[in-house]
Amino acid sequence: MHKIEADVQISLLEENRKYAGENREFLREHGVVSFNLMGATGSGKTMLIEKTADKIGEKYRIGAILGDVAGDDDFKRVKKHGVKAKMVNTGKECHLDAHFIHHAIEDFADVDVLFMENVGNLVCPVDFDLGEDYRIVMVSVTEGDDVIRKHPEIFRLADAIIINKISLADAVECDVDTMIRDAKRLNARAPIIKMDLKKEIGIEEWIEWFVDAVERAKKLKGV
Amino acid sequence: MHKIEADVQISLLEENRKYAGENREFLREHGVVSFNLMGATGSGKTMLIEKTADKIGEKYRIGAILGDVAGDDDFKRVKKHGVKAKMVNTGKECHLDAHFIHHAIEDFADVDVLFMENVGNLVCPVDFDLGEDYRIVMVSVTEGDDVIRKHPEIFRLADAIIINKISLADAVECDVDTMIRDAKRLNARAPIIKMDLKKEIGIEEWIEWFVDAVERAKKLKGV
Repeated sequence: MHKIEADVQISLLEENRKYAGENREFLREHGVVSFNLMGATGSGKTMLIEKTADKIGEKYRIGAILGDVAGDDDFKRVKKHGVKAKMVNTGKECHLDAHFIHHAIEDFADVDVLFMENVGNLVCPVDFDLGEDYRIVMVSVTEGDDVIRKHPEIFRLADAIIINKISLADAVECDVDTMIRDAKRLNARAPIIKMDLKKEIGIEEWIEWFVDAVERAKKLKGV
Repeated sequence: MHKIEADVQISLLEENRKYAGENREFLREHGVVSFNLMGATGSGKTMLIEKTADKIGEKYRIGAILGDVAGDDDFKRVKKHGVKAKMVNTGKECHLDAHFIHHAIEDFADVDVLFMENVGNLVCPVDFDLGEDYRIVMVSVTEGDDVIRKHPEIFRLADAIIINKISLADAVECDVDTMIRDAKRLNARAPIIKMDLKKEIGIEEWIEWFVDAVERAKKLKGV
């Protein structure tokens, strides 16, 4: 029983790796810089795409593959901000995988930047490479100030960490300094951006990191 | 039996995480930027430290914690290049862990840059966060042109990938383009640097990436 489960898991990850590699090749060939955007439901992932498009949609053509268990709410939202979007319903799956992306990606050869908005979950997406350039992890203060240390792997491997809804910290009795300290213990490479998207806090800092990351990735791709 | 093994593994990784967090705090407090340097025995890790010190030892004070199963050969080598060094003999362990680093780190509060040269191995170091800012993976063409795809995880999580001894590629019938293609399929974020340390090939490109990485990390640490 144990043996069989282990074998299934390995072959799943190997298959995922194959598709992730093909996705990465496709994105490089077309000079697309991609971001695997992870975080719990309600952490603000979709709004981050909207605000980014509002700020920088003139500079970069932005695309988004929106993963959700069901529904097309996110799809309708980002379209209004000029984002080229595609919905991926994962059904029972609690994360995007490279095969889902593989099906969706062909439509995005003409964008500069592609967001892959993962399913709301801080555990399952960690193991599944999508073929992205960067991994962004978002949390909201409403998730509690122990949320980061409870999910070490996803924060350890992040390229940028966003703590959203900071204006609500006092109301929900969340100690943001604790979250920041936990994040810094797990990761010294990623900026930790305090944000409140609805109040336009932290967006400038995000855009500064984002543009720098896009330009570095473009240089590596030879774009 | 399975259950017990799994529990032991989890508690090992949890303990490692605790020490890695403390290492990261210590390094941040002292403004030290650190590199976990991984690669098989003979891939050129120690020589990379030597050459980096020769090139940039005026700009940054460089330290190195040298992990090896036994012996102090690497220690003696880097000392000659002005590197502040400490040897860590891991005994039976095939990788450094954060606890080894925790013991060694106090002596390095006064350096700008700290290399943590891991034990020669492309598998075991992957799971053990040392508290580093960046992960560098080195391979040599003498390891065969399938070495990268055979070790996907370590290359997926690398911040820079170095292919060393490229001048020997023809002699050992290694197709460097295959290695580069495999690396690019696994990782779009890391530069892939073709190098031959003994012939001084690729060092400028490495130093350019290295200085940029050090400066970005210093900015995040507020140094």
